Amino acid sequence: MITILTKKITEATAGFCDIIDITGKIKEHIEQANIRAGMVTIFVSGSTAALTTIEHEPGLIQDLKEFVEKYIPSNRRYHHDDRWGDDNGFSHLRASLFGPSLTIPIENGALSLGTWQQVILLDFDNRPRKREIIVQLIGERE
Amino acid sequence: MITILTKKITEATAGFCDIIDITGKIKEHIEQANIRAGMVTIFVSGSTAALTTIEHEPGLIQDLKEFVEKYIPSNRRYHHDDRWGDDNGFSHLRASLFGPSLTIPIENGALSLGTWQQVILLDFDNRPRKREIIVQLIGERE
Amino acid sequence: MITILTKKITEATAGFCDIIDITGKIKEHIEQANIRAGMVTIFVSGSTAALTTIEHEPGLIQDLKEFVEKYIPSNRRYHHDDRWGDDNGFSHLRASLFGPSLTIPIENGALSLGTWQQVILLDFDNRPRKREIIVQLIGERE
Repeated sequence: MITILTKKITEATAGFCDIIDITGKIKEHIEQANIRAGMVTIFVSGSTAALTTIEHEPGLIQDLKEFVEKYIPSNRRYHHDDRWGDDNGFSHLRASLFGPSLTIPIENGALSLGTWQQVILLDFDNRPRKREIIVQLIGERE
Repeated sequence: MITILTKKITEATAGFCDIIDITGKIKEHIEQANIRAGMVTIFVSGSTAALTTIEHEPGLIQDLKEFVEKYIPSNRRYHHDDRWGDDNGFSHLRASLFGPSLTIPIENGALSLGTWQQVILLDFDNRPRKREIIVQLIGERE
Repeated sequence: MITILTKKITEATAGFCDIIDITGKIKEHIEQANIRAGMVTIFVSGSTAALTTIEHEPGLIQDLKEFVEKYIPSNRRYHHDDRWGDDNGFSHLRASLFGPSLTIPIENGALSLGTWQQVILLDFDNRPRKREIIVQLIGERE
């Protein structure tokens, strides 16, 4: 019997490429829901944040921040800024490039991640935000 | 009772990074199908188009076009062009970078998008195309 | 009646942006499982590999390799390398950019890919690896 469950994670972020490991909170939802086999779709609502996976260690986090700053710099003016004056054109572009959704299989009640692979929320906005991430579980319960 | 429904959207595109907001057409399919809780997978068939989300306003659309033109320019020659002579190596690379699929949760019959977040089709090909986008709904009907 | 099935693909890779077409192996799993309508989620475990689609021909494969080498070069030092000494900071960054998951609809027992669109595994690590790709099928069986 397949079930669909929709859960939420909220994160207070600092903006400017704040990178937060949300793997633990996703695992908690899977455990509480008792999903043994299935998958989880993770989605961040909002056009200045994104999701991907990475080995979440300080060196790589710094590398990722320097990568986005180099190719989509925060200190130049974008057409979006000319029109709307909120100065976060860079935030939108970065979010569109990385994308808002991620789908991960669940096997034997566990996320099918590699040992050094964590799910991260990337908040690219130019101010602190309260982010809502949707964790949608589809699968068979115990 | 979980149901799977497969719907289509077609779009006539101009090519060369034509960016089209398809959010309204996805919402219509969800409403017609009466899916209350579940998710939608959106997929574009073809290797020169992609999907992502963005705030669909003219400034950002221009920013996104300039971004892809800067890093994957249309006016140089690619190995793909040498082999196949169709001069759209840049189109393929851009499509692979952004990716062809997107999965979005549905809650209370509505897409879980942010207020300023729209789903866009990016057609990177070097000529007008008729594109088919698959909208696959999985969920519980009313 | 909706079913969930979890299958595996293994690939021996050479590393350094080894790009492998896994479309045939995904199709085999769909045929063996007799899924007529549904979708497949493909996920690579590990933080130095990724998935996307492309027209898998030697010219474009070379273009894609040159693209990642230009913007995330393998011959410079990353903060990750300073901390961990495994010299594959570039591998991690590339993998995070392309992402580990892909979802593709299945219609009439076939993947909804375009004619020139194949699913590829990108192994960005700096050494040969044995990769495990999860192929998760959700749908109605014949």
